[in-house]
Amino acid sequence: MTSQKQWFPGVGNIPHDPKAKRGSLVFRHFNPTEVVAGTSKTLGELLPFGVVAWHGVCNPSADMFGRGTRPMPWDEAPDPITKGKQRCEALFELMVKLGVDYYSWHNYDLAPEGATLKESHKNLDTITDFLAELQAATGKKLAWGTCDHFSHPRYRLGVATGVCPKVYAYGLSEVFKMLEITMRLQGKNFVLWGGREGMRQIMSIIKRLAFVLENYGRFGNSVCDYADEIGFDGKIIYEPKKREPSKVQYQSDVAATLFLLQQAGLLQRENVGLNLEENHAGLAGLDFAYEVAMARAADKLISIDANEGDPLIGWDVDEFSHTVKKLIPVMLMLLEDGGLPNGNLAFDAKLRRESTDPKDIFWGIIGAMDTWSIATKVAAQIRSEGVLDDIVEESIYAEWGTSLGDRIRSGMTKDAITNAAHRYGPTIELPSGSEERINVLINEHMFPAG
Amino acid sequence: MTSQKQWFPGVGNIPHDPKAKRGSLVFRHFNPTEVVAGTSKTLGELLPFGVVAWHGVCNPSADMFGRGTRPMPWDEAPDPITKGKQRCEALFELMVKLGVDYYSWHNYDLAPEGATLKESHKNLDTITDFLAELQAATGKKLAWGTCDHFSHPRYRLGVATGVCPKVYAYGLSEVFKMLEITMRLQGKNFVLWGGREGMRQIMSIIKRLAFVLENYGRFGNSVCDYADEIGFDGKIIYEPKKREPSKVQYQSDVAATLFLLQQAGLLQRENVGLNLEENHAGLAGLDFAYEVAMARAADKLISIDANEGDPLIGWDVDEFSHTVKKLIPVMLMLLEDGGLPNGNLAFDAKLRRESTDPKDIFWGIIGAMDTWSIATKVAAQIRSEGVLDDIVEESIYAEWGTSLGDRIRSGMTKDAITNAAHRYGPTIELPSGSEERINVLINEHMFPAG
Amino acid sequence: MTSQKQWFPGVGNIPHDPKAKRGSLVFRHFNPTEVVAGTSKTLGELLPFGVVAWHGVCNPSADMFGRGTRPMPWDEAPDPITKGKQRCEALFELMVKLGVDYYSWHNYDLAPEGATLKESHKNLDTITDFLAELQAATGKKLAWGTCDHFSHPRYRLGVATGVCPKVYAYGLSEVFKMLEITMRLQGKNFVLWGGREGMRQIMSIIKRLAFVLENYGRFGNSVCDYADEIGFDGKIIYEPKKREPSKVQYQSDVAATLFLLQQAGLLQRENVGLNLEENHAGLAGLDFAYEVAMARAADKLISIDANEGDPLIGWDVDEFSHTVKKLIPVMLMLLEDGGLPNGNLAFDAKLRRESTDPKDIFWGIIGAMDTWSIATKVAAQIRSEGVLDDIVEESIYAEWGTSLGDRIRSGMTKDAITNAAHRYGPTIELPSGSEERINVLINEHMFPAG
Amino acid sequence: MTSQKQWFPGVGNIPHDPKAKRGSLVFRHFNPTEVVAGTSKTLGELLPFGVVAWHGVCNPSADMFGRGTRPMPWDEAPDPITKGKQRCEALFELMVKLGVDYYSWHNYDLAPEGATLKESHKNLDTITDFLAELQAATGKKLAWGTCDHFSHPRYRLGVATGVCPKVYAYGLSEVFKMLEITMRLQGKNFVLWGGREGMRQIMSIIKRLAFVLENYGRFGNSVCDYADEIGFDGKIIYEPKKREPSKVQYQSDVAATLFLLQQAGLLQRENVGLNLEENHAGLAGLDFAYEVAMARAADKLISIDANEGDPLIGWDVDEFSHTVKKLIPVMLMLLEDGGLPNGNLAFDAKLRRESTDPKDIFWGIIGAMDTWSIATKVAAQIRSEGVLDDIVEESIYAEWGTSLGDRIRSGMTKDAITNAAHRYGPTIELPSGSEERINVLINEHMFPAG
Repeated sequence: MTSQKQWFPGVGNIPHDPKAKRGSLVFRHFNPTEVVAGTSKTLGELLPFGVVAWHGVCNPSADMFGRGTRPMPWDEAPDPITKGKQRCEALFELMVKLGVDYYSWHNYDLAPEGATLKESHKNLDTITDFLAELQAATGKKLAWGTCDHFSHPRYRLGVATGVCPKVYAYGLSEVFKMLEITMRLQGKNFVLWGGREGMRQIMSIIKRLAFVLENYGRFGNSVCDYADEIGFDGKIIYEPKKREPSKVQYQSDVAATLFLLQQAGLLQRENVGLNLEENHAGLAGLDFAYEVAMARAADKLISIDANEGDPLIGWDVDEFSHTVKKLIPVMLMLLEDGGLPNGNLAFDAKLRRESTDPKDIFWGIIGAMDTWSIATKVAAQIRSEGVLDDIVEESIYAEWGTSLGDRIRSGMTKDAITNAAHRYGPTIELPSGSEERINVLINEHMFPAG
Repeated sequence: MTSQKQWFPGVGNIPHDPKAKRGSLVFRHFNPTEVVAGTSKTLGELLPFGVVAWHGVCNPSADMFGRGTRPMPWDEAPDPITKGKQRCEALFELMVKLGVDYYSWHNYDLAPEGATLKESHKNLDTITDFLAELQAATGKKLAWGTCDHFSHPRYRLGVATGVCPKVYAYGLSEVFKMLEITMRLQGKNFVLWGGREGMRQIMSIIKRLAFVLENYGRFGNSVCDYADEIGFDGKIIYEPKKREPSKVQYQSDVAATLFLLQQAGLLQRENVGLNLEENHAGLAGLDFAYEVAMARAADKLISIDANEGDPLIGWDVDEFSHTVKKLIPVMLMLLEDGGLPNGNLAFDAKLRRESTDPKDIFWGIIGAMDTWSIATKVAAQIRSEGVLDDIVEESIYAEWGTSLGDRIRSGMTKDAITNAAHRYGPTIELPSGSEERINVLINEHMFPAG
Repeated sequence: MTSQKQWFPGVGNIPHDPKAKRGSLVFRHFNPTEVVAGTSKTLGELLPFGVVAWHGVCNPSADMFGRGTRPMPWDEAPDPITKGKQRCEALFELMVKLGVDYYSWHNYDLAPEGATLKESHKNLDTITDFLAELQAATGKKLAWGTCDHFSHPRYRLGVATGVCPKVYAYGLSEVFKMLEITMRLQGKNFVLWGGREGMRQIMSIIKRLAFVLENYGRFGNSVCDYADEIGFDGKIIYEPKKREPSKVQYQSDVAATLFLLQQAGLLQRENVGLNLEENHAGLAGLDFAYEVAMARAADKLISIDANEGDPLIGWDVDEFSHTVKKLIPVMLMLLEDGGLPNGNLAFDAKLRRESTDPKDIFWGIIGAMDTWSIATKVAAQIRSEGVLDDIVEESIYAEWGTSLGDRIRSGMTKDAITNAAHRYGPTIELPSGSEERINVLINEHMFPAG
Repeated sequence: MTSQKQWFPGVGNIPHDPKAKRGSLVFRHFNPTEVVAGTSKTLGELLPFGVVAWHGVCNPSADMFGRGTRPMPWDEAPDPITKGKQRCEALFELMVKLGVDYYSWHNYDLAPEGATLKESHKNLDTITDFLAELQAATGKKLAWGTCDHFSHPRYRLGVATGVCPKVYAYGLSEVFKMLEITMRLQGKNFVLWGGREGMRQIMSIIKRLAFVLENYGRFGNSVCDYADEIGFDGKIIYEPKKREPSKVQYQSDVAATLFLLQQAGLLQRENVGLNLEENHAGLAGLDFAYEVAMARAADKLISIDANEGDPLIGWDVDEFSHTVKKLIPVMLMLLEDGGLPNGNLAFDAKLRRESTDPKDIFWGIIGAMDTWSIATKVAAQIRSEGVLDDIVEESIYAEWGTSLGDRIRSGMTKDAITNAAHRYGPTIELPSGSEERINVLINEHMFPAG
């Protein structure tokens, strides 16, 4: 390390201590070695948490109307490289103290951008060396790397889908470099977001949409080709978001992203997948669980940015997860899949601008880890107990288990369909949708009585 | 006709009369034989309007809190068949008086549903005969037919993606019948909407989403196969809508619908396309023009339900089009395509509940036809004049016309990309996005001065 | 009763039985006689639940795209009066079986509207007699009465704020009658909602807004005057809702309603208050707890319509309450007030259209009662423990306890203010807003560990 | 001036030239000396435009995801005071070249904040002297002054409604100073916005809402008292906005703001009024025209921040006005009032981040001024012609002109009301709401044919 100094001197390693007195910085639910009921996996295996450098140690808590408020002593440094290294230290200190195994970063979160691409690469190499040392020293691992393709003014009119081939080339070359670095640091995956890949004004795309979407596909295929070439065995994961900063991002939600990937021949590639985010689902007007279900239906869910939006707010608030209820259907699905075997739960979440105590970042992350842990345990109980399956599978969808169901799914002729229609209709007895009963069931598991 | 009686006795044929005194029921902009500047087509050819039976003559103007208010004398009949025929008459009277060439209908808009499928078919045949007579007598044509797969309680838990194979079979057999009828009436297209194909509660789809989407694909392929079998030469057109009545419909917007169609092998079929609706775009949080652009980029735009939503209202208000500005980018695109060569502009729009004067339906449709006509003429002027292209094509996207643009699009190696990045970055000069200037340009064409 | 027949024959009285096996129709948390920690009141006293006739026994579960699906045997009757009485029976059977003490009704929920006002009054008297008998027989009580001023077409252009004085008079006379009935049945309060009191189109109010708001005030004062005259000792409670059915209702949220009441001289009247609804807060883009806080700040919170909206849905979904977390801040406030001493928690909530099992209404209401009960107990624990107060009162607002705080609140001169500014600014040390920590605290109480 | 240099060297004074060739920076509709039909006022009198320093010359076009992109040569200066003066020069150059008579500023837009309040005051005095010179030299005037109570971290937890009396005092003392400056510069009004006066988290207001609203009132009264004391003859104008930066601002919309002002005794003061903004109305889920109507109904509309939001975007986009249609009902109301006799139309609008050409600010402002001018002329025509009044006043509200209407408005007894109800109901004939017809009428005036 560049210093022996701790960046969070007031906080030690966070223990699992369910009975600690109120106000203690402890995990009450997250115990990484606890085996989850009905599975062969531990909480730690099912919930591969990660801290993201961007919000974790780089974001000064400004908003559109106010300057940064967050004390970030690691940013006070005589030169940009030292500052970058101190950000790395603060990041790893957070991981160590919180028992989080993974981190993620955008290239310029930690390495300062240089005056030339060459200088940027040199800075990236320096920081990468330093990260490799920190990984070796701590056993911490890289969840994903990515490129910041939104902050610099050169990206204001798009990158892959942008108006300028120079920008396209510059952005792509940054991805090549960062992919190499991600591989060197044994990162699990590489993220492509695309906040500037979208519509700013309708008039500029009415003749160009097919053209820019073709460029989008070409860009992605170049990334995947290079990943194959260098033997990167992670996934290239795309991240849907409907808007902000663009008026509409082309990858507006899961289904839209899957469509674009399919059209580009990317969905067909083994190494392409999705990175979902709770807050992004909400901005698209969709439940996060719905988005997870849609990604799973296409077998493309890889990783999750674990945060939480406020459904009344029209922009990305990136709160640390704190609502157990929303995560129960998500965990019911992840338990089906054995967690996120090839991905992570990265906290792309930020402190409130008013949260200025150095401990607040710990409250945020601890709260999120416990929230996901509670949801995991409740979901595991629901699965073990089986009543939800009784209602949904044994009642609501029961008719699909009959021979008519089988016949339809094997392929029926027009005449056979019509005969069935004559026979069974027009009034058809149906089960109740049982939504009220299911709501009670979920609450019974969340709030056990007696 | 069943009667000599007129259903709209107070209104005659609506003339094109730009100088008529205020308050006259006339077209001031829509003149079907006027050739649109810069094209070889007339307004009538570019804007193939249609009236939809559903809202046009069947909807009594109820809302979730109040009973119907609309006077509909054609619904007062001694028996359901007579009532159905009178609805047909009222519909054709509207078309004749408004000079609208097309109509559309759901099976049970005009033919009463029977106590058995057989009886329903018989009623449909009777009404179809009657429609054929009316078509012959008036020269009016069928834009599209479709099935009402949302009103009857049997569809409450879904149709193709529903919980019951009996319902699936019943719904599909209705489509077969209505497809035959549409073909018999020489309808241009057949619509599949899907208001009940969606999520009611998240718990019921977390294990079933892939299954129901498979059924969705099977259902659609059965429809297309049968269309091929009987030689229907129109398109099967799917209609995106995000929500209402379902919490989320799977076909939530254009991109999502295209993805589902692609996964099902339907997008690949020649006879599959899309039917878009302005109000549905808004419910999905998207500009209608964006949705049109996305459908065109996939070469799947066939038809449009011409209405207008209120962006502040969270449900389908289905107003008659009255905002020219929103339609200008749409018409810029349609003029590229020579209109909607295989589709229509169907007024899936309804009267306000408070609009109880028999003339109000005329005001609504005339207003909508004039609105689309103004937008068409303004868009044609913008195209002819060329300044928008100068800004967007010659300035904003100009760099893609350079050799670097060509090379990228022909395929550049990683090294070549990186060399270009070193050469051109990191600061890259870019054109202005010129949104303010484009806004001025549009207004200059909408509101010519001097 | 009109019959010995039970309308819900498959369900008996619902017991409190926390340990009942899964799937049992029991209360697991609601125990009316349980004293809530830190208070001298029982759950039953703090949560004066009520069933609303409208959704409870009158709503057939139609939606804008589909017919009713709910089996309602009590609606099958040879004549309207018998049907009305059977609705009353079904309503009281629900109350008795669920142990709910209160009910509410709109005039025409239970009494059929007649062909004349006289006949309507006669029907109302008949049904009122019957309700009085049922009250006497069961000990159940009336929470509030109200008028249905939205279903009948005569109300389509507004009532108090409408376009026609005849409608104003008719609506007001209905209120007079229903107020008498509410008094006769010893109802606690009388509700004025106002779904048709709002803007349909902007052009019709630009010259008339002040005029119609004057009428709104006159109408309300006539109601209050008559309540005083007849000695009704309940409150006239107004209910905010932003939209639906109107584009915008004037009483769009709590603050707007309070403003209108104030301008009309109604806020100043002792017998005027507010009836809030969770779903209505969401439609206004506000947290329900925020609305409750605003009503309390004006000392005008009387009663609550207990239901739950879906923040992604743009219309009134009126789900039975099932989300504990949203109710915790609400119950923290109600515990300050000793519950709703002059009001009720009326379930203005409806079954999902797909919920067609006769037991579903029980699942819905039981679930809601348990949800409120859990929230009450969690809130009571938070209050008793005191850590939230430590954070908010002892830390966040601590400076207002200093002498500077006192001086400001006693009134400081311009010079004194300026001196303080010179002394303390421009950089001022502030506590953390501690949102992350508070989120953890709430979860610790909701999901106790260890 | 500090320099002879022009900050916008490529642009001269903008003429009114309706026939200039496309692409010319000219006004095509705004002609300040043109008398508006049916009025005795000129366009310049009816539309007292103003440029706001904040967005006009201080905003570098950053967004939450990207750095500033705007070339602002005036910000390159050796010291903060020179930079501030150069901002003043750029601002006045804009006004002179655009023929805009007014400007507005927040204290620290133009005067750098100092290390102490004293230094800030000194800087303000220096800049004020310079502004006074520029005013004298150009004849330009101050629309309103205001304080930036959102950028500095000290305001993160609120100002008047905040958690700390030191911050309250500091903020108030800044207002005192800026009020003096506004008076010295003969500013017409003084704005109080309140972006940090709101809810960050619900838990922190549940015991404090009444307390902080009391502080809000005290703060406002101190401001008004001081304005009276020094003889400021403008208005103190409050500006509603629902959210951003706060989750909810207490002054969430017009009605809420009026309520808070009323409770505080501020609404009753002669010198208190409202400053409305189009984009803020949209964020509150309301039409701007509705908000204008509500402010007028309370006789409190003073001034307008003229910009435009995008109804699909959940944050403040502050586009320059470009949609004529939305402004027509607004101008119909302002024409009733003779414009904004005591206020201004200040362009609180910003360039898109992609608009990087120095001319873009001219396109933006010219476009906005022409947009308002067109709306004014269309509205004037509608008024002169009278058909809208015929429909709304002579038809829709006609019944209020009958004797029953008069009697109701004079006060009718309960018995008289009931007699009228018996006589006229229950079925009451009503006029059509005529929304379709009104939509046609508006379009006829916007797009004259023939």
